[in-house]
Amino acid sequence: MTGGFVSIVGAGPGDPDLLTLAAIRRLRRADVVLFDALVEPGALRFARRAARVLVGKRAGRPAFAQDAINRRLIAAARQGLRVVRLKGGDAFVFGRGGEEALALAAAGVPFEIVPGISAATAAPALAAVPVTHRGVAPGFVVVTGHDASTFVPILESLAPNVLTLVVLMGVRTRATMAATLLHAGWRPDTPAAVVLGASTVGAARWAGTLDQLRDVVLDDLRDRPGTIVVGDVVRLAGLIDPGMDGTSRIAAHAAREQPTCAR
Amino acid sequence: MTGGFVSIVGAGPGDPDLLTLAAIRRLRRADVVLFDALVEPGALRFARRAARVLVGKRAGRPAFAQDAINRRLIAAARQGLRVVRLKGGDAFVFGRGGEEALALAAAGVPFEIVPGISAATAAPALAAVPVTHRGVAPGFVVVTGHDASTFVPILESLAPNVLTLVVLMGVRTRATMAATLLHAGWRPDTPAAVVLGASTVGAARWAGTLDQLRDVVLDDLRDRPGTIVVGDVVRLAGLIDPGMDGTSRIAAHAAREQPTCAR
Repeated sequence: MTGGFVSIVGAGPGDPDLLTLAAIRRLRRADVVLFDALVEPGALRFARRAARVLVGKRAGRPAFAQDAINRRLIAAARQGLRVVRLKGGDAFVFGRGGEEALALAAAGVPFEIVPGISAATAAPALAAVPVTHRGVAPGFVVVTGHDASTFVPILESLAPNVLTLVVLMGVRTRATMAATLLHAGWRPDTPAAVVLGASTVGAARWAGTLDQLRDVVLDDLRDRPGTIVVGDVVRLAGLIDPGMDGTSRIAAHAAREQPTCAR
Repeated sequence: MTGGFVSIVGAGPGDPDLLTLAAIRRLRRADVVLFDALVEPGALRFARRAARVLVGKRAGRPAFAQDAINRRLIAAARQGLRVVRLKGGDAFVFGRGGEEALALAAAGVPFEIVPGISAATAAPALAAVPVTHRGVAPGFVVVTGHDASTFVPILESLAPNVLTLVVLMGVRTRATMAATLLHAGWRPDTPAAVVLGASTVGAARWAGTLDQLRDVVLDDLRDRPGTIVVGDVVRLAGLIDPGMDGTSRIAAHAAREQPTCAR
């Protein structure tokens, strides 16, 4: 009944190659892994000895309530198990890792936090967008587009066109987001990009301007997590990766399946 | 003369265990590694075959001009070498990776970006601070404290006490930063933390309030990179990690060496 321990581990944006050594070591030793739907199956191959439990939720479709996840983590640790709580991205960046950590601390269960690569930085980088760049963007803001009642006042509070804006889980609400920014004074021609499934085989991306983002139809969203980047740094992508030319574009293998983007 | 390739690789916040598999694979295959001063020596042990060149700069003390680094990358790739440009954190988060990528693209040198874990999220996480938390912080802002003329107008443009503020390379300028925020209307009792050398053996941290941050004396800064976090999420650290009780504190092994913090 002793020796149980929980590692709250960030799995990165998707590609198992973007797992850290620390994450892989925890997975190899794990007795049980509780993982999110956004975790790619390849990440679980390192957890050979472990029972694997999908507790994930995707935007709008919770499989387990957060309380139930917390209770399972605590119960497993109290059975003396080595538990890995594997979350997409970084657990403390819109991952509700703080809530799980608070529950574990309150229950007296020993635990640790293992940082992961957040899509907030990795998705732009993999689309050739540096979120900061000398003379272009002196910093960046990260918000979630999950709930318009939360993000609208935040976006309204930002000075227009100063910092790069990164929006996680905002593909569905992008029209509201873009309209809010335009109303707040952002330039209509501010470059903007949508990155879907960054680092995974289903990766796709669109680039255009903020006023295009408000109206664009993205046909092939499926369930891939999406990251939106707004700011002049998006224009650099066309120079850094000549394949991404600053206008609309979808990764080739996604485009072969069907048209995934229309303007 | 062909086959040269540059991987611009984020090494994470310091601990080699926070390297990704992708980074380790590039290091193992590398013929030459050009690395920053902020990269921990342990990360280089994976580059067994490679020549290792320190090109790093720390705040205020450039060893190589950026142009010279760009030229070295291009020249090495044109010799047909597999080049790894290893940078602390993530290359596209205040890492000037965008400038190197632009130079490589302009020179026609093939390259890739391998994301790393930025201290912007890892340093708070390792100090038990979730940068986002439901009901506490709906997002976060990341800026650099390197140059007051840049960050002061940015801080003045932020709505007070809405988003978590993360400042990289701002330990030296923290008094100006705190004074700017207070003048802009942030609550004097806003929790604030300083994290030094996150994930390394020299890690240390202080926590207090924004008005204390303006005046605090940190005696033992050495050359460790520092991350500052300002916002109510800092208060959660005292609940998540009972060892960090919301008041001033320095990691035990640092405190044993000498008092590293005074208020």
